[in-house]
Amino acid sequence: MMRTIEWEDGVVIIIDQTKLPIKFVLLRMKKCSEVASAIKHMKLRGAPLIGVAAAYGLALTAFHSKAEEREDLLKEIDESAVVLRETRPTAVNLFWAIDRIVGKARATPGEAMNVAKIVVAEAQRMANEDVEVNCKMGEHGSRLIEDGDGVLTHCNAGSLATVDYGTALGVVRAAWNQGKKIRVFAAETRPRLQGARLTAYELKRDCIPVTLITDTMVGHVMSRQLVNKVVVGADRIVRDAVINKIGTYNVAVLAHEHGIPFYVAAPISTMDLSHTSGEAVIEERNPEEVTNVRSIRIAPEGIEVMNPAFDFTPMKYVSAIITEKGVFSPEDLKTVHKDLKRQD
Amino acid sequence: MMRTIEWEDGVVIIIDQTKLPIKFVLLRMKKCSEVASAIKHMKLRGAPLIGVAAAYGLALTAFHSKAEEREDLLKEIDESAVVLRETRPTAVNLFWAIDRIVGKARATPGEAMNVAKIVVAEAQRMANEDVEVNCKMGEHGSRLIEDGDGVLTHCNAGSLATVDYGTALGVVRAAWNQGKKIRVFAAETRPRLQGARLTAYELKRDCIPVTLITDTMVGHVMSRQLVNKVVVGADRIVRDAVINKIGTYNVAVLAHEHGIPFYVAAPISTMDLSHTSGEAVIEERNPEEVTNVRSIRIAPEGIEVMNPAFDFTPMKYVSAIITEKGVFSPEDLKTVHKDLKRQD
Repeated sequence: MMRTIEWEDGVVIIIDQTKLPIKFVLLRMKKCSEVASAIKHMKLRGAPLIGVAAAYGLALTAFHSKAEEREDLLKEIDESAVVLRETRPTAVNLFWAIDRIVGKARATPGEAMNVAKIVVAEAQRMANEDVEVNCKMGEHGSRLIEDGDGVLTHCNAGSLATVDYGTALGVVRAAWNQGKKIRVFAAETRPRLQGARLTAYELKRDCIPVTLITDTMVGHVMSRQLVNKVVVGADRIVRDAVINKIGTYNVAVLAHEHGIPFYVAAPISTMDLSHTSGEAVIEERNPEEVTNVRSIRIAPEGIEVMNPAFDFTPMKYVSAIITEKGVFSPEDLKTVHKDLKRQD
Repeated sequence: MMRTIEWEDGVVIIIDQTKLPIKFVLLRMKKCSEVASAIKHMKLRGAPLIGVAAAYGLALTAFHSKAEEREDLLKEIDESAVVLRETRPTAVNLFWAIDRIVGKARATPGEAMNVAKIVVAEAQRMANEDVEVNCKMGEHGSRLIEDGDGVLTHCNAGSLATVDYGTALGVVRAAWNQGKKIRVFAAETRPRLQGARLTAYELKRDCIPVTLITDTMVGHVMSRQLVNKVVVGADRIVRDAVINKIGTYNVAVLAHEHGIPFYVAAPISTMDLSHTSGEAVIEERNPEEVTNVRSIRIAPEGIEVMNPAFDFTPMKYVSAIITEKGVFSPEDLKTVHKDLKRQD
């Protein structure tokens, strides 16, 4: 089965996620600028996938470079890194991935060609690591899921948000594969409808029972006791909050009020525990995402709108954070974080 | 200015709300069955408006009846009432309005023609009363709104949900007309987007500052302190809960968590305090409202969905209920309810 992103001899292949679930369209990209544009326009999205795509973007620059001098190649890579950094400000994996590739390139001795080879290999390693990390997260997180559970998720933290398997949906997948009979409730996640378009799509494709609801039904399904666990992903975890898709905070407060555990599944690369929520930039996207659904206008002309792409869920609402290194309470995470990063 | 529903010599004229805000289309109806169909397909909606429309539907039956015998006309009215009762099960105003017209017809002596005349007059009286009631509600409720407030509302409880002026938006309108500088945050209200389509439209039309947000942004705008009051309408108020558009419960819990007052503006005709939430029927609507936005499909084919039209907000989340007879705490409302109905 194809991964969400593939490297094929100097070509990066992705699924155009803006076309799902109506059409399955592959995009083939040979330039880092095309990758940057795909990230910006959300043809691919999801913090882990954005990170790996950025690494592959730099790998494209290295692979196709005509530079003979090592310094010329490093300069080209730096220029590509600047373009990638400007695509989306919130997910920390983007910056983590760029730093890792740029650091690897700088640390690699020898000619340009050697550096290029190592950069491509590093990007491929990061893609493989993402799948491994998700499988480990699934393994750890699945212990929190019991037979018969109703699991609510927001946005898409699935195989389509990662190289494969998924973070929050990796946990669901692992539990399902262990034979636990569960049902997922996918909140549609306006404005961009990643829940309706992507989570519903990939769970249905994989035959995992899923019920699609609008974001307005979250409290209702909780009060009706159809849901007894929440698992979501994260775009960035800071010291005092989880930053994730707009609407996550609604879900967290509602879960808290109903005594339902609220779990966040995210790789260590998502952690930014030296910062707090006050220091994080929340991306404000095009108002047309709110006033239109695809090509259909749903609001009066000239109406004022807000369109923050993410919100903050304070740690008091987070029951546990599922990582590839185990399941941590928010308090424990702060303590072990330095060790985790070091092992990493 | 035209009201949301008008009676013009045996013709009922309404705005087709499914076409707003893109097109302003008037519908002219001469048969009660057309009114019933318009209610069912939400060409008109909002509990108070549904009530008056049902009254006008029966008035159409009476007005155009060829019955000469009083009993024949009463039978025709009863038959129309049966059709109207089957349109939408949750809003109590529908049943209240039908009972009032049927009761009036039965209590009216004389020939069919006399009964018909009285029925038409009673429907018109109910339409006028609705506007008066909303203005009074606005007057009482506006005392709760202060200069500089950010007021969040869900769905549309505006002039488009009533004959004119609105319940929740009547309160907003009254405060605005008193010179209080306020801003309304309209939650778009999936699946049918009454917030984006109708609330945004009518407030913009009336030059009241409004910001449209998706339902996923409700917690975010509260935590950012952009909102410090919530006012919504109600479809039915039972002893232990307010029944209103799906998503109201989310908003109520989020308001509670942020210490933001949550007000419900609803006429006495919406009260059903002899029943509890366990006894109320929640309408389940067509799944295509969730899987599609207008003609655009947003979810995979064959996906399982839920589509309850309403939810329950337990009274513990309700700060006060604004009625035409004054502002009441949920506890007080139970005590005074009998007196209110009697005065009514």
